[in-house]
Amino acid sequence: MTPTNRTIVLASRPHGAPTPDNFRMEERPVPIPGAGELLLQLCYLSLDPYMRGRMNDAPSYTPPFELDAPLTGGAVSRVIESRNEGFAVGDLVLGHLGWQEYALSDGAGLTKLDAGMEHPSYALGALGMPGFTAWHGLLKVGVPRAADTVVVAGASGAVGSIVGQIASIKGARVVGVAGGPDKCRRVVGELGFDACVDHRDPGFAAALLAACPDGIDVYFENVGGAVFDAVLPLLNVGARVPVCGLIAHYNDASYSGGGATDKGPDRLPLVMTTILKRRICVEGFIISDHQAEHGDFLRDLGGWIAAGRVRVLEDVVDGLENAPEAFIGLLEGRNNGKLVIRATHA
Amino acid sequence: MTPTNRTIVLASRPHGAPTPDNFRMEERPVPIPGAGELLLQLCYLSLDPYMRGRMNDAPSYTPPFELDAPLTGGAVSRVIESRNEGFAVGDLVLGHLGWQEYALSDGAGLTKLDAGMEHPSYALGALGMPGFTAWHGLLKVGVPRAADTVVVAGASGAVGSIVGQIASIKGARVVGVAGGPDKCRRVVGELGFDACVDHRDPGFAAALLAACPDGIDVYFENVGGAVFDAVLPLLNVGARVPVCGLIAHYNDASYSGGGATDKGPDRLPLVMTTILKRRICVEGFIISDHQAEHGDFLRDLGGWIAAGRVRVLEDVVDGLENAPEAFIGLLEGRNNGKLVIRATHA
Repeated sequence: MTPTNRTIVLASRPHGAPTPDNFRMEERPVPIPGAGELLLQLCYLSLDPYMRGRMNDAPSYTPPFELDAPLTGGAVSRVIESRNEGFAVGDLVLGHLGWQEYALSDGAGLTKLDAGMEHPSYALGALGMPGFTAWHGLLKVGVPRAADTVVVAGASGAVGSIVGQIASIKGARVVGVAGGPDKCRRVVGELGFDACVDHRDPGFAAALLAACPDGIDVYFENVGGAVFDAVLPLLNVGARVPVCGLIAHYNDASYSGGGATDKGPDRLPLVMTTILKRRICVEGFIISDHQAEHGDFLRDLGGWIAAGRVRVLEDVVDGLENAPEAFIGLLEGRNNGKLVIRATHA
Repeated sequence: MTPTNRTIVLASRPHGAPTPDNFRMEERPVPIPGAGELLLQLCYLSLDPYMRGRMNDAPSYTPPFELDAPLTGGAVSRVIESRNEGFAVGDLVLGHLGWQEYALSDGAGLTKLDAGMEHPSYALGALGMPGFTAWHGLLKVGVPRAADTVVVAGASGAVGSIVGQIASIKGARVVGVAGGPDKCRRVVGELGFDACVDHRDPGFAAALLAACPDGIDVYFENVGGAVFDAVLPLLNVGARVPVCGLIAHYNDASYSGGGATDKGPDRLPLVMTTILKRRICVEGFIISDHQAEHGDFLRDLGGWIAAGRVRVLEDVVDGLENAPEAFIGLLEGRNNGKLVIRATHA
């Protein structure tokens, strides 16, 4: 049987939530490396909420995906052929690759991983972009002080789960927000948050108030929407709001450049008034701007994971063919922890 | 003729824009100082937009004015009787006093001014709270770099007029936003802004775009409303938005704690999305938090005014009896520069 290179391409751009027909699986030939090139076999593919933005044909901090071309993402791969003296067969590498089982590379942009590392997929999560995002956003933008109350949206997700654990290490009281009682139980029981509130519960706002008797000093914004509305009245004077993501809005027209089409009431005057009266700082950040801090991040988080002070929640889905459905579920909050696809050959 | 102490009290709380019947003039006896007290005669009274917030019975960064009691504000007064050895008759003092022609004080909270200063009213404006607000908000929150484009709302007002001139000194390209062609002409002609755009002009957004060919790096927010809507799409990656005031909203129910009652569309998702994608920092501040910087401010701004590098725009209205009408006009943008009341005896 000739091996085929199963590849998932963007078949059409979603309007609102993505659906399976926005994706198409193609069976392509396995490519043959030319001089200086490597053939990579996919081990783990990262699925991340920011990818939804790239499915729109709108300017953002990353360019749009092209129609009929493979979607791309962070991936851990194994070198299975090498015509590049910088890499040997068997090397484990991290790079930004297509949603496909085999890929060519000239080595540019690849980072070699320890070939014997116990959890190669961590390079896509806790020790990768989401972990780095959590570390920078909390410590450099949120800047929690000991005894602060830190509220973390998306608390069981790839970023939020790390944010809360770092905040605990720094001495803060940590309150998670997650979707559903099961996730909330894991956030408290497995990740050690002080409390976790279910944003799907009709009593969410009251429960958040009860969980934050001293108000909120840092709100790590990952979701937007109704969670932000409940957080706003609880923000203390001098509160910091790192804006890392807005998953509740990724399917909205306003996110893809469609303007303020969301129906009213207009919440902006209330938000700006609160920012003014309580001297709040709301600050967006994109982790790719902060590569200079990457070594510090790896030292910190690698140490905490090794010491058992940070636990990693992973949601591993087998088979590249399941990536579209898993990605659709990610935007609906169906994942538990960092979502990765494990390829058949991993 | 026995001198009377004309006093303006808060007769009722406004709903929306204040009207003359929210104020009442009373003729009270001139008080007699007791042991340790001073009798002060009003010279200049400061009228500032933040006072609108104090007319509401709602928590804010300053407590509400009380009904049937004198409104209060920054004032420059002359000591005309002293039973306090710290002050002599003839001393010129700055303090937070009532809207009244005579006041008692035990000296607490008063700052002596140079009794021979050429422009005592500057202590309420360029060298007072509004100037300090401008200096701190621009330099400590906005942090302009040379060649940045700085857009200043309320450009002919007490704060905005100083913000823009400091930004020019720091090497920025400075674009004002003001209400009406006359104000815009003064902002460019007298204050030296590089451009000024009239927010009342139907072509405002296009004119702002034309005046900011390299986008906006710092937007000094004084007004809110439609000006912010035009600024938002022009904000550059890494832009800073110090939120100093929201005069367009001071008469809104949402400002006085009434919640998000403004009609849609809801602009918040678009704003948060922009903050995220362009890594923007929106930060509220209140100048009373930053007293430690006051000496640096006075040294900087005093030097620039003395050297002719900062010009002071003042709108002086004679007679305390005209304070209510002048204050109503301030919220409508009818003033030109820092609005002060000059008392009959000044």
